[in-house]
Amino acid sequence: MEGVDYLIDERKKAQFDVEAMKVAWAGSREAFELSDRMAKLVANDPAFEKFTRPMLSRKELFKNTLRKAAHGWKLIVDLRLTEEEAKWLRLYIDEPAYTDLHWGMFIPAIEGQGTEEQKKKWLPLARRMQIIGCYAQTELGHGSNVQGLETTATFDPQADEFVIHSPTLTSSKWWPGGLGKASTHALVYARLIVGGEFHGVHGTLRKLVSSLNSAVGKPVSNCIAVVCIYRLCGKMNLSIVYHRCFNEGFIVQLRSLEDHLPLPGITVGDIGLKFGNGAYNTMDNGVLRFDHVRIPRDQMLMRVAQVTKEGKFRQSDVPRQLLYGTMVYVRQTIVSDASKALSRAVCIATRYSAVRRQFGSRNGGPETQVIDYKTQQSRLFPLLASAYAFRFVGEWLKWLYTDVKQRLEANDFSTLPEAHACTAGLKSLTTTATADGIEECRKLCGGHGYLVSSGLPELFAVYIPACTYEGDNVVLLLQVARFLVKTVSELGYKQPVGTTAYMGRVAALMQNNCTVRTVEDWLNPGAIVEAFEARAARMSVACGRQLAKFENPEEGFAELASDLVEAALAHCQLIVVSKFVEKLQQDIPGKGVKQSLEILCYVYALFLLHKHQGEFLATGYLTPKQAVLANEQLRTLYSKVRPNAIALVDSFNYTDHYLGSILGRYDGNVYPKLYEAAWQDPLNDSDVADGFHQYVQPILKQKLHSAKL
Amino acid sequence: MEGVDYLIDERKKAQFDVEAMKVAWAGSREAFELSDRMAKLVANDPAFEKFTRPMLSRKELFKNTLRKAAHGWKLIVDLRLTEEEAKWLRLYIDEPAYTDLHWGMFIPAIEGQGTEEQKKKWLPLARRMQIIGCYAQTELGHGSNVQGLETTATFDPQADEFVIHSPTLTSSKWWPGGLGKASTHALVYARLIVGGEFHGVHGTLRKLVSSLNSAVGKPVSNCIAVVCIYRLCGKMNLSIVYHRCFNEGFIVQLRSLEDHLPLPGITVGDIGLKFGNGAYNTMDNGVLRFDHVRIPRDQMLMRVAQVTKEGKFRQSDVPRQLLYGTMVYVRQTIVSDASKALSRAVCIATRYSAVRRQFGSRNGGPETQVIDYKTQQSRLFPLLASAYAFRFVGEWLKWLYTDVKQRLEANDFSTLPEAHACTAGLKSLTTTATADGIEECRKLCGGHGYLVSSGLPELFAVYIPACTYEGDNVVLLLQVARFLVKTVSELGYKQPVGTTAYMGRVAALMQNNCTVRTVEDWLNPGAIVEAFEARAARMSVACGRQLAKFENPEEGFAELASDLVEAALAHCQLIVVSKFVEKLQQDIPGKGVKQSLEILCYVYALFLLHKHQGEFLATGYLTPKQAVLANEQLRTLYSKVRPNAIALVDSFNYTDHYLGSILGRYDGNVYPKLYEAAWQDPLNDSDVADGFHQYVQPILKQKLHSAKL
Repeated sequence: MEGVDYLIDERKKAQFDVEAMKVAWAGSREAFELSDRMAKLVANDPAFEKFTRPMLSRKELFKNTLRKAAHGWKLIVDLRLTEEEAKWLRLYIDEPAYTDLHWGMFIPAIEGQGTEEQKKKWLPLARRMQIIGCYAQTELGHGSNVQGLETTATFDPQADEFVIHSPTLTSSKWWPGGLGKASTHALVYARLIVGGEFHGVHGTLRKLVSSLNSAVGKPVSNCIAVVCIYRLCGKMNLSIVYHRCFNEGFIVQLRSLEDHLPLPGITVGDIGLKFGNGAYNTMDNGVLRFDHVRIPRDQMLMRVAQVTKEGKFRQSDVPRQLLYGTMVYVRQTIVSDASKALSRAVCIATRYSAVRRQFGSRNGGPETQVIDYKTQQSRLFPLLASAYAFRFVGEWLKWLYTDVKQRLEANDFSTLPEAHACTAGLKSLTTTATADGIEECRKLCGGHGYLVSSGLPELFAVYIPACTYEGDNVVLLLQVARFLVKTVSELGYKQPVGTTAYMGRVAALMQNNCTVRTVEDWLNPGAIVEAFEARAARMSVACGRQLAKFENPEEGFAELASDLVEAALAHCQLIVVSKFVEKLQQDIPGKGVKQSLEILCYVYALFLLHKHQGEFLATGYLTPKQAVLANEQLRTLYSKVRPNAIALVDSFNYTDHYLGSILGRYDGNVYPKLYEAAWQDPLNDSDVADGFHQYVQPILKQKLHSAKL
Repeated sequence: MEGVDYLIDERKKAQFDVEAMKVAWAGSREAFELSDRMAKLVANDPAFEKFTRPMLSRKELFKNTLRKAAHGWKLIVDLRLTEEEAKWLRLYIDEPAYTDLHWGMFIPAIEGQGTEEQKKKWLPLARRMQIIGCYAQTELGHGSNVQGLETTATFDPQADEFVIHSPTLTSSKWWPGGLGKASTHALVYARLIVGGEFHGVHGTLRKLVSSLNSAVGKPVSNCIAVVCIYRLCGKMNLSIVYHRCFNEGFIVQLRSLEDHLPLPGITVGDIGLKFGNGAYNTMDNGVLRFDHVRIPRDQMLMRVAQVTKEGKFRQSDVPRQLLYGTMVYVRQTIVSDASKALSRAVCIATRYSAVRRQFGSRNGGPETQVIDYKTQQSRLFPLLASAYAFRFVGEWLKWLYTDVKQRLEANDFSTLPEAHACTAGLKSLTTTATADGIEECRKLCGGHGYLVSSGLPELFAVYIPACTYEGDNVVLLLQVARFLVKTVSELGYKQPVGTTAYMGRVAALMQNNCTVRTVEDWLNPGAIVEAFEARAARMSVACGRQLAKFENPEEGFAELASDLVEAALAHCQLIVVSKFVEKLQQDIPGKGVKQSLEILCYVYALFLLHKHQGEFLATGYLTPKQAVLANEQLRTLYSKVRPNAIALVDSFNYTDHYLGSILGRYDGNVYPKLYEAAWQDPLNDSDVADGFHQYVQPILKQKLHSAKL
């Protein structure tokens, strides 16, 4: 029945103030109200309907996205939305589009790397969307390995122009979002050639980069490379490091502003279908080749390095703080996105687990709600707890960004390596856990989770690139490991800072073992944090010792890569656990809000402890008995989460539009809506399917020999 | 360049005879030749082209599948293929179609549950495909919980007919493959009502089933329910157990054989899109409602139970052996499919890891092949080893099926519970590992794995239902756990058999600890198997002890569900490891073949040991030091796999057609083909995208206010 809330009994069970929890989740009342306003604006506007998306052909799908992007932009302009509001609006439109790259990469890159003059010329055009830009870095044969880029930009002093060229097939730009069909301009990264000489990575730096790479064994993104090299050669002038690592960026017009046709020398198109129905196929990830395309000299972004009219290559004194700040900022956004994606999936799976009933009927009464089964709880509730944990660690990263920025502005670089390791690790941990968690939520919905109308297949398909972009997750953990090993090796004379401060107590952490004796003893934040600290510290120290056995440290690093990754993950889990614990030391208003979060914090920590008990045991910090007690406590905690489960996902404040899931409907009215939705599949347009007369009738009538197949 | 083998250097490295390994993989020379012949028949026939599949709209996609199915059937008829050949042909066509259900479920169900008369009437029609049938059991509100089915079949003695009816929305049949558009008939499972009385599960049995369900906490498929109940009430007449658990099956005509329109009272259609591009959307999974549809009495399958003309319900003496044999048979097929799916993904990821180069370039030479990095090896090679492990355990299950069948025919039921637990567990283990493994392979291909043309997204999307159908994987493990706990509790007076025989040595396994002292000591099948036995036995015993603390054993079972699942998985991993070890005790011809398989066997076992080291340590069988030694040995083993990696995936003998992946091409010519493929996306049909003039031009020209969106 329409208008009935089938989950009302569940909502009555809640032991906390849901409205207060919504504010805690959003971060502040203002943040909640802004987000809520934008969510409703989108949800109530039929122009942003999502249901048919997965059924559209690629062309229809793309056209529909262009329409939504235009409609969104019109709202932003008409309602004079602030930048912050516009960001939330685009988020809730929930459809990857060229505008994401235009606003998220093209404009910020010009802001960061352009001279004042260049900004004055290009930013107004871009901000009014008189031009549409994308960010063209990766190539067909080269992921984020910036050294490997093959596209060239050769300076021609006679014409005062650069000649942009793709010398090989593998140098084709490949993947940039918005490049294929929408963008009029691209920010193209290329190897600069001036006077016949490459101005790329070379000499001493080449060696440094090469050692970094062989250690890491995988593509490293620009920012990462810079920071790593910074750490490897701390005394070198940062600005040199910076410009030599980056290929230079060039603003290149791709298409005519009149008829949108590709300009001479430009070959551009879409790279084809990606994973999933709808999903990221709304985006025109593109391929681009240059055949000696000429651009004026002033279209090289020259804040960092310049090429003069005379063909002289120069570098400026870069205000590097902003560049590094950006890295921390981007990572923080990714962690925040992870908590959004995971919480969406958890919201769907939790609500449907309360709706769905299977077995356990007594005397012909209704069957048991699936959410009441321990196997369901032990898979679902840790994900619910993770969503909250990621939300709070993301919030803390926002603070870290401000802190790093302020320090950099004051020329204080002391916390930079730690901040880099921390953000890299958290990006890796949260995106991997979220991708896996979305798929787990799909499985928790049983067979119906496989239907596109459950929303989970599309959520998964659209999310998983996060594990690869901005640094492959395994590579990032290797970088964290490198930092940890270095921190350990320097303990004698260098005080570890920030999230590695616990390493300063390494002697105690190596020596003291866990003192837990009863199930209740585990309900102690101090005991939990120390357990995670001891495990992480002991694993880092063990890696350091193993590495010391190798003559060539880089060979050791390559050989022990898997162990290093495990140590890094242990460290990152510690960060998430301790930031959750710290959050709970703050004042959190609202009846029962803090108590409910405390339960989730314990669930998150003890779930990880059980999952990785091998490491806690192998390092000798825990006894098998203590591990068993933790697991028993975990079961008790699940029972405490149970009555609050629906309210905890209601607190995300997601509209049915944003969730995009019949299984996750707020009102729980699942089955009639699934049934209704089925009939909208194009296959149901006619009673007898297209192709029946050609391909099935001849079989049934035993006339296949004469049929035309 | 066409015709060049870019992987030739890799192939030269192989230390074994690839042709002999192909035979070892296939099981026999005959099996290899049959499979090879069918694979090539499909690959060389342009009618079975797969590349455009993911780009088709739902209607085009379905029509295309109908075409392929007809073409396949024509080949089977024209070439007079045997049943075995036809099965391989359908497999290599590699496109889910209504024919899968017609041949795989509809016909076998009539064979198993029909009387001689019924078989004589229906089987010839079905085998000539004069009718097309599907298997309609699950309902919108009810998964595999056969008790919960709501569809009714009421006997009307006046008319000598059954009235098939869907009394509620949730009773709509939902999910059956082939039901939506193709099938003319369905085998419908419904609650039988004779003389106003339900002939479903009730009375004593109702209680038994209910206790089973609350323990298991999830849908249980028919076969599972039967066998569990059989175990719970061993002394009851099996045939009673059997018929009371099943709803009865009715052959119902759905569509006219003339115009294919749904018959009166029948509402039938497709349930809508499922996960992924192409993938399972080639199948018309259907929804079906009955409005008092009448069928003749003799369309109830009456081998097991009859309703007489007079309205008397009777049961026959069922030759139950075949029914149970079927269960083992189906599971064995699923395990075999798992090894196929995983090996496809591994083949793609391995070849592309050898093609792809990233970093590590020395003096401007080529970059390092990704496959040479330890992080890549430590993720990829265990999956390669798993593919082989699953292949061999599947082969062993085939033997088990024969064995069980022979015993049942001789009225020997002694091994049945063990065979059930074993097949249930292996189905769960292999399908979960395969689903996760395919996604891991996709990640191992970096960014390009996200492209549909990598083949991995579709492979994943089409595979994952295997984790849910024929018993949800978690539920199955709970059943294994129940069996293990029972086995432990009966140890004093009942000799454990088959894969649980090791439990007979439980005293020794509880007492003796691992004797490994050096890295080399781990290269010992005896040491490895004993470690897995000790871990599994100790975990089962621990569960038994925990359960004993509960007054109500079923409550204990529900509360400890997660621990039980872990114990069950440990037992199942032991089975796979020991069957791999046993395989290697056989004669395996071919230079270096056995040696290469031995390495894979160690990789599989030691990888699991490392992954689950917490359990090996917590149970006290291993010391942390021994776990470290195992991990060190594992690294050495990876280096031994490396030179053979490409040859090991070549040995699967997959055609490029079957792989369906540009990244996994046999010749390694990846980049030019990716580039070529991009241009075939419909978005590239025109230089300027559809929708540009409506939705982008007005933005660029600042005329959005007057645009029609």
